[in-house]
Amino acid sequence: MTTDFDLRLDTLRAAYSSAKLSPRALIAAVHDQATALQAEFNLFIHLLTEDELEPYLAALDSKSPAELPLYGIPFAIKDNIDLAGIPTTAACPAFAYTPDTSATIVEQLITLGAIPLGKTNLDQFATGLNGTRSPYGECRNSVHPEYPSGGSSAGSSLAVALGLASFALGTDTAGSGRVPAALNNLVGLKASKGLISTAGVVPACRTLDCVTFFTATAAEASQLLALTAELDPCDEYSRANPLWNDGSAFGQVKSFRFGVPKQPEFLGCPESPALFATTIEHLKAMGGEPVEIDFSPFLEAARLLYEGPWVAERYSVAGALIEQQPDAVLPVIKAVLEKAPGTTAVQLFQAEYRLQQLKAVCDRIMATVDCVLTPAYPRPVTLDELHAEPVKRNSDLGYYTNFMNMLDYAAVAVPAGVMQNGLPWGVTLFGRVFTDQYLLSLADMLQRQHGIALIGGQSITSPAPQNTARSDRARVVVCGAHLDGLPLNWQLKQRGGRLLEATCSAAHYKLYALAGGPPFRPGMVRVADEGVAIEVEIWEIPSSELGSFLTGIPAPLGLGKVQLVDGSWETGFICEPYGLEGAADISEFGGWRAYIKSRS
Amino acid sequence: MTTDFDLRLDTLRAAYSSAKLSPRALIAAVHDQATALQAEFNLFIHLLTEDELEPYLAALDSKSPAELPLYGIPFAIKDNIDLAGIPTTAACPAFAYTPDTSATIVEQLITLGAIPLGKTNLDQFATGLNGTRSPYGECRNSVHPEYPSGGSSAGSSLAVALGLASFALGTDTAGSGRVPAALNNLVGLKASKGLISTAGVVPACRTLDCVTFFTATAAEASQLLALTAELDPCDEYSRANPLWNDGSAFGQVKSFRFGVPKQPEFLGCPESPALFATTIEHLKAMGGEPVEIDFSPFLEAARLLYEGPWVAERYSVAGALIEQQPDAVLPVIKAVLEKAPGTTAVQLFQAEYRLQQLKAVCDRIMATVDCVLTPAYPRPVTLDELHAEPVKRNSDLGYYTNFMNMLDYAAVAVPAGVMQNGLPWGVTLFGRVFTDQYLLSLADMLQRQHGIALIGGQSITSPAPQNTARSDRARVVVCGAHLDGLPLNWQLKQRGGRLLEATCSAAHYKLYALAGGPPFRPGMVRVADEGVAIEVEIWEIPSSELGSFLTGIPAPLGLGKVQLVDGSWETGFICEPYGLEGAADISEFGGWRAYIKSRS
Repeated sequence: MTTDFDLRLDTLRAAYSSAKLSPRALIAAVHDQATALQAEFNLFIHLLTEDELEPYLAALDSKSPAELPLYGIPFAIKDNIDLAGIPTTAACPAFAYTPDTSATIVEQLITLGAIPLGKTNLDQFATGLNGTRSPYGECRNSVHPEYPSGGSSAGSSLAVALGLASFALGTDTAGSGRVPAALNNLVGLKASKGLISTAGVVPACRTLDCVTFFTATAAEASQLLALTAELDPCDEYSRANPLWNDGSAFGQVKSFRFGVPKQPEFLGCPESPALFATTIEHLKAMGGEPVEIDFSPFLEAARLLYEGPWVAERYSVAGALIEQQPDAVLPVIKAVLEKAPGTTAVQLFQAEYRLQQLKAVCDRIMATVDCVLTPAYPRPVTLDELHAEPVKRNSDLGYYTNFMNMLDYAAVAVPAGVMQNGLPWGVTLFGRVFTDQYLLSLADMLQRQHGIALIGGQSITSPAPQNTARSDRARVVVCGAHLDGLPLNWQLKQRGGRLLEATCSAAHYKLYALAGGPPFRPGMVRVADEGVAIEVEIWEIPSSELGSFLTGIPAPLGLGKVQLVDGSWETGFICEPYGLEGAADISEFGGWRAYIKSRS
Repeated sequence: MTTDFDLRLDTLRAAYSSAKLSPRALIAAVHDQATALQAEFNLFIHLLTEDELEPYLAALDSKSPAELPLYGIPFAIKDNIDLAGIPTTAACPAFAYTPDTSATIVEQLITLGAIPLGKTNLDQFATGLNGTRSPYGECRNSVHPEYPSGGSSAGSSLAVALGLASFALGTDTAGSGRVPAALNNLVGLKASKGLISTAGVVPACRTLDCVTFFTATAAEASQLLALTAELDPCDEYSRANPLWNDGSAFGQVKSFRFGVPKQPEFLGCPESPALFATTIEHLKAMGGEPVEIDFSPFLEAARLLYEGPWVAERYSVAGALIEQQPDAVLPVIKAVLEKAPGTTAVQLFQAEYRLQQLKAVCDRIMATVDCVLTPAYPRPVTLDELHAEPVKRNSDLGYYTNFMNMLDYAAVAVPAGVMQNGLPWGVTLFGRVFTDQYLLSLADMLQRQHGIALIGGQSITSPAPQNTARSDRARVVVCGAHLDGLPLNWQLKQRGGRLLEATCSAAHYKLYALAGGPPFRPGMVRVADEGVAIEVEIWEIPSSELGSFLTGIPAPLGLGKVQLVDGSWETGFICEPYGLEGAADISEFGGWRAYIKSRS
């Protein structure tokens, strides 16, 4: 059911660069394929015609693949995101309008060379997690016909899973970018709120909405995020991306702690527990240390989303239409929204207070780990089950997703297994705000570790990146008064510092006791020869506080790069040459601790 | 009308340390004085009795002034903040309760040695800016009997202004900690939301409330903030204070840009325009460059607070009482709150969207300046005017204050003049979140520049601090590929970097062209003799991004301290000694620019 093409970004780039393929040839092929698949999958609400595609192809005629990072890359757009000149329906024909301009994210992608294939089907007003709530037809699963695609970004997940688009745009307020990813063997990136502009997107909950990427691999999602995470003056919910999260350090995570719910819920699924256990083992093999966490505050935050006044946000979008043309909106959507008009501002404030309490509790848990691993959903549900109990079965799918935007976390769904009936199964890695690229690095490692076949049966053959992934925590190598228990260590502790490892430098250093003090300080100096290994400690502090730590360091010391015994280089203390005047070479002690002990 | 005592923190510390004064003697004196002043000013709702004071005094018996930073310092507490064992009334007898434990901030201060004198009068439920809305009597101004104290933290401002307390706690949702400061010749610090715990405080608007300090000087407010800004697990709105804002760098600001409203509103006040113009001149004399800003988005945010659904937050506190005992609440407060129950959640979300739009606009303006200067209020209002038009005149006082917490900014009211009738006049300095200590440094400089007599007629005689104040921006000295227009300059621009100054280092450096590249890089090395001045640039980037900038610098370079031609030391590029192997001494060029020009 897929094209013959491997549509991954690197594959297409190579094909275009070697002139084995042209954008026109590729687009014609996927367009034919899409037309053929439409009747079975209902994935497009509007597939662009040849005429509508032509301007995008023509724009590439004067460009070369080397000029544009997404040259000729086909992508699909969930039909609650504007593409200029094509109707936006949000899967509600009576709501439809034709925008003059594209959403910021669509405009960004087109400017980078990507080609929009069409607007995809969704649960009406992005309200749903299953893909059946649309007057444009139900979206079945890409692999197993008895299961739904998942939603609300139903058609977007199918466009990638069926090999029609390299990537697709979804949206995710409560899980709409993650549930369909997991059900279709895809990576679904719900980046931190505000990183991808939502200007030109039909809101579900304006304060919570995110635009998402569906891709075959985490590495592609990393590239797309790095290319598009920009402050957008047209989106007042847009936020600047801290530079540690810019994607330039996509790569390996040496050791990490991952939270796992104390009593994970599988809703009776016979296979999910073992699949989840296997993924935990894979993360351990990657250097992860599992930490059991209390999941109840996360679940309570999730319940606030649909049981509390946030439904009023959705009503502020669709409410006027419901009042004027009640039949224009699907009964199941009306049922979800009907309690909204009666909700008072006092009730909303009280719910916001409760959410803030829960966020404080969850944030304290999140501070103890580098990420959290959960199943993407407790168990998949069949189309028959959805038809029988549309609200309950939909809720089941959101068990592990609904709280994410309420609590302002970043999340990525990752393929993590195949059920006996062939249905894909997935997990979610989530973390503190602005740890998106760190999570994607872990997701990339996990995809390699699992070795699950990608959509189309391909496998990841590109070499693993050799960079060290960065998160919102920075590592600092200390060798003197900042060592654990010594007089300046409080400067690290004050910043929430944590000792990661006591180790040694490479054997290329000399240690000097500097003149002056107290506090007495050493200078650790790299030398061409006769160097020794010096005792050091690696500490972790918030990246945002590394600057204030640096600012407090007096001359002749500073922070630069220090080589460790394992050959790696980390940020750590260095010393200017002039500072060695009057200093005593104490390298023979092998470290500051041994030296001060000898003096006491 | 004041005690004979100068109650400033340093004065009392000196008196206690030299044993010229004991806490018991001081407290007895201020207690007598407070009793004498109460009939005229109605400032206390509950003045602690000798018996109630005794445990706090007894706790100091076993301590010395050197042990406790606030040893024996008398302070007053607004009566919407809990003190264990004493009723909290919020100026509404029917609402009163007696808490078992003190508010976190009160507990912190007592633990530091401070002594609570009493609970002070306020506009009922902290709803008001004038000090007349209380069943415990009106609070007149400390200086001029025809004017109000200002509110809602009325009695707290009077306690300090009348020389009864070294400092007092207020609260500030819409201006309650700033308006009474300005009317009584005090500094009023409304720190960034979440820095001072609000656990144990009767909410006005839970999402906006701040606890504030009234002091005679900005330097004292700085000390108090540094002592108490701590993450409180009991307050879910508590936020960690970034270390650049820890108060350790309270001091001078060299040069800065301050916003001034394009068309400041004085509501016909004949004296305010000249007083404001004088303050602008003072800031210019301090190194400030005025920048006209569009003030309309700030004012629109202000209007949302009282004309929009945020009133529902206040109703969620007092609403139940109003419904059960309508007569228990003052008519003016009921009038403010009565529209709250009819406000819907949909309306609140729509107001939150509008606020977010306004915040995005205001944040862009705030990014162009280091702080903004406004009058504290357009013009003072008399008691007679307030009685005639209680809501309108109250609103007049909030013209420059209402938006501050809605937009999440830090603010400090500073004495800035005296009107011809003797009434104090003040300004507000406000800035981005977590620039509190920076604003206080400016306020301290402004107090010295103005030279206005403090309460009690004292003047500031302590020497100006010599530290360089820090804000949420960090300064970096660059000398090579990061110079404006050179190949790595984008790393600064990408972080929102701004060139502050092109200057030279002190004449103690050598410049080397390092081996390797591109990019080609110099190493700037401090030497004992034969050094020269090197061309450098000072750039400014967000402190939170200094760490990621550092992380991207490869060996042998790093960041340390560089001395400039004016003798000051700034964070900037340094080079490890081993990196000079194979490097060429290019000091004769005087800078990297001249060197690369010579090679091209």
